[in-house]
Amino acid sequence: MAKSDHVSDAQQRLDRFATYRGVMNERIGEIDHLGIKRFFALDSAAYREGALDPKTKELLGLVASAVLRCNDCVDYHLLQCADAGWTDDELYDALNVALVVGGSIVIPHFRHAVATIDAIRANEIGREAERD
Amino acid sequence: MAKSDHVSDAQQRLDRFATYRGVMNERIGEIDHLGIKRFFALDSAAYREGALDPKTKELLGLVASAVLRCNDCVDYHLLQCADAGWTDDELYDALNVALVVGGSIVIPHFRHAVATIDAIRANEIGREAERD
Amino acid sequence: MAKSDHVSDAQQRLDRFATYRGVMNERIGEIDHLGIKRFFALDSAAYREGALDPKTKELLGLVASAVLRCNDCVDYHLLQCADAGWTDDELYDALNVALVVGGSIVIPHFRHAVATIDAIRANEIGREAERD
Amino acid sequence: MAKSDHVSDAQQRLDRFATYRGVMNERIGEIDHLGIKRFFALDSAAYREGALDPKTKELLGLVASAVLRCNDCVDYHLLQCADAGWTDDELYDALNVALVVGGSIVIPHFRHAVATIDAIRANEIGREAERD
Amino acid sequence: MAKSDHVSDAQQRLDRFATYRGVMNERIGEIDHLGIKRFFALDSAAYREGALDPKTKELLGLVASAVLRCNDCVDYHLLQCADAGWTDDELYDALNVALVVGGSIVIPHFRHAVATIDAIRANEIGREAERD
Amino acid sequence: MAKSDHVSDAQQRLDRFATYRGVMNERIGEIDHLGIKRFFALDSAAYREGALDPKTKELLGLVASAVLRCNDCVDYHLLQCADAGWTDDELYDALNVALVVGGSIVIPHFRHAVATIDAIRANEIGREAERD
Repeated sequence: MAKSDHVSDAQQRLDRFATYRGVMNERIGEIDHLGIKRFFALDSAAYREGALDPKTKELLGLVASAVLRCNDCVDYHLLQCADAGWTDDELYDALNVALVVGGSIVIPHFRHAVATIDAIRANEIGREAERD
Repeated sequence: MAKSDHVSDAQQRLDRFATYRGVMNERIGEIDHLGIKRFFALDSAAYREGALDPKTKELLGLVASAVLRCNDCVDYHLLQCADAGWTDDELYDALNVALVVGGSIVIPHFRHAVATIDAIRANEIGREAERD
Repeated sequence: MAKSDHVSDAQQRLDRFATYRGVMNERIGEIDHLGIKRFFALDSAAYREGALDPKTKELLGLVASAVLRCNDCVDYHLLQCADAGWTDDELYDALNVALVVGGSIVIPHFRHAVATIDAIRANEIGREAERD
Repeated sequence: MAKSDHVSDAQQRLDRFATYRGVMNERIGEIDHLGIKRFFALDSAAYREGALDPKTKELLGLVASAVLRCNDCVDYHLLQCADAGWTDDELYDALNVALVVGGSIVIPHFRHAVATIDAIRANEIGREAERD
Repeated sequence: MAKSDHVSDAQQRLDRFATYRGVMNERIGEIDHLGIKRFFALDSAAYREGALDPKTKELLGLVASAVLRCNDCVDYHLLQCADAGWTDDELYDALNVALVVGGSIVIPHFRHAVATIDAIRANEIGREAERD
Repeated sequence: MAKSDHVSDAQQRLDRFATYRGVMNERIGEIDHLGIKRFFALDSAAYREGALDPKTKELLGLVASAVLRCNDCVDYHLLQCADAGWTDDELYDALNVALVVGGSIVIPHFRHAVATIDAIRANEIGREAERD
C-alpha cells in the first residue's frame, strides 16, 4: 500500500459511510419514534451557536468521539471540523489531547483520523480543481 | 445505495457473522480450556428461564450490548429477541433507552441495529414465502 | 460491620443521594440551558409508557447502568424498579445478566446494588409499620 | 441540604482533592520511574500552547474527562478552565456536548461539575473580598 | 495532609473495604442465585494455577482493573499481588503499562494504587514488628 | 467457511493491518507533532526491559487490549507475545482472565484473538518449511 493508497482508500470509505449514513437516517426517520427523533434533534442542536460557537463545539465533539473510540463519530466530526475551518495542525493538536487522555488504545482511531483528514483535504483540492 | 440495499447488505453481513461465529465457537471448543468453556456456558445460562423469563432477559442483553457498543453482540441479541417475539416497535423502544443512557456515541450502533432488524424481518418473510 | 450495618449504611447513603440529587437538579434548572433541560426531559420520557411499559424500561435502565458501572444510576433505577413492582429475585436475575455481560469489573457495583435493594426493602417495611 | 451547602461541600471536596493530589504527586515523584515521569510530563505538555491555545485545550480536556466519567479529572480541568477565562455559560455549553455525546450516564458527573463550578466561583469572590 | 497521612488513610480505607467486602459477599451468598454463585466461582478460578501461574495472573488482573478504572478491583488485586511476591518496582512497572494503554484518565486510579501499595507495605512491617 | 478458512482469512487480515499500520505510522511521523511523537515513543518504551521483562509486559498489554476491546491492539500484542515465546495455552489462559474481568462483551474480541493466534502459528510453520 503506497502513500497515495491510504488517501483513496479513506475517500472510498468516507463515500460509503456518507451513503450508508444517509440511507439509514432516512430509514430511522420512517420509524417515527418520538424519543429517537428528539434525541437526533438534540444531538444536532448541541453543536449550534450558543455560549460557544459551532467551530469550538465541533472540536469538542471530535475529541469526545476519539476518547470514546468511535470511528464513524470521528469521521463525522472531522468533516464538520474541516468545514468549520480548523487546520490540519489544529486538528492534530486536538487529537494529541485525545491520545494523552485516552491512551495508546486510541492509536488505531488516531491512525483512522489522520487518513480521514488526508482524504478530506484531497477532496477539497479536487473540488477546487473542478471549479478552475 | 437504495433502501433495499441496506437490507440485503445486512442479510449478507448476518450470514457471514453466523458462519464465522459457528466456525470460531467450534474452534474455541477444541481449545478445551475449562475456564473458557465454563464462561461460555454461564453466558448461555444467564438468558434461560429464572425469576425473569428468557424473553425479558434477551431484551436486557440487547440494551447492555448497545450501551457497551458491540455490534456483534447487538446482532446476536436481536436475533434472539426476534425469536422470542419482541416486535419492531418494542425493539425500537428498548434501543431508545440505550440511546438516552449511552448518548450519541451509540448512534452508529443504533443504525446497525435498525439494519439488522430489517434484515431479520426480510428473512422471516422469505421463509414464510418458501413454506407457502 | 455487622449485617444490619450494611442496610443502615445504605439507607443513609440513599438519603444523602436523594437530598444531593434534589438540590443539584434544582440548581441545574436555574442554569436554564435549553439543551440541558431538553436532555433531562428526554431522559425522563425514555422510561414512560410506549411500545414497552415503564416497568420493563426501568429494568433496562438498571442493567444499562450496571454494565456502564454507575452507582448513582444503579441506585436511581433500583428505586424506580422497586416502585414498579419488581421482586428481589427478579432484580438479582437482571443483575446476573449485567454481571455476565460486563464481567467481574461489575462486582463492586453488584455489591452496591444488593446493599441498596436491602435498604429499599427495609424502608418499605419501616413505612408499613408506621401506617399500622 | 440547603443550596449554600452544595457550594461549601464542593469547596471542602476541592480542598481535600488539592491536598491529596499534591501529596500523591510528590510521592509518585519519589518512585522515580522514568516512564511514569515522562507520562506525567507529556500529560502537562498536551495542554500548553501549540497549534491550539491552552484555553481551548483545557476545554477539550474537560469534555474528554466528562464523557470518560472521571470526577477528579473533571474537577482538575474545571479549575484550569476557570483560570483560563471560560465563563459559566461557556462551561455549561461544553458540558452539554458531553451530555449528548455520553448520555444520561454522564448526568452524575454533570451534577458534580456544576457543584464544582459554583465552588470555584465562590472561592474567586472570597479571594476578591480579601483583596478589598 | 502530611506524607504519613496518605498511608494511614489508605490503611483505614483498605480495612473498611475488607469489612464491607466480607459482609456483602456473605450477603450475596445468602441470595443463593446459581448464576451469580457460579460467576463468583469462575472469577476466583481464573487466577488459579493453569498454563500461567497465579502470580502472573494476579498482575494481569491488576492491569485489567487499572485500565478499566475500578479502584476496588485495583485494591483487591494489589493485595493479591503483594501476597504473590511482586515487588513495588514490578508493580509500578505494570501500572506504567496501564497508564500508557489507558491514558491520563487512569492517573487518579494510579494515585489510588500507589497509596494502597504504601499501606500494604506499612501493614507488612507492622505485622513483622509484632512477630519480633 | 471451513476451518482452514478462518486461518487464511486471519492471515490476510494481519497482512493488511501490517501494511496499513506501516503506511499510517510513516504518515504520522511526517506530521512531526512533538507530543504525538513522544506519545508513540513512550508507548514503545513501556514494553521494554524494566523491573518487569518485556515478555511479561506484552502479556499485560494483551490483556489490557482485550478488556478495552480493541482488535488492532489485540493483534499487535499477540504478534509480540508470540515473538516473546508465550505458548498458545498461556495466551488462552491470559485471555480467560480478560473474559472473566471484561465479561461476555469481550467474546467477539476473544474469537478474533483465537483466529489471530491460529494465523500466527500457521505463518511460523510456513516460514520454517521455507527454511528447510
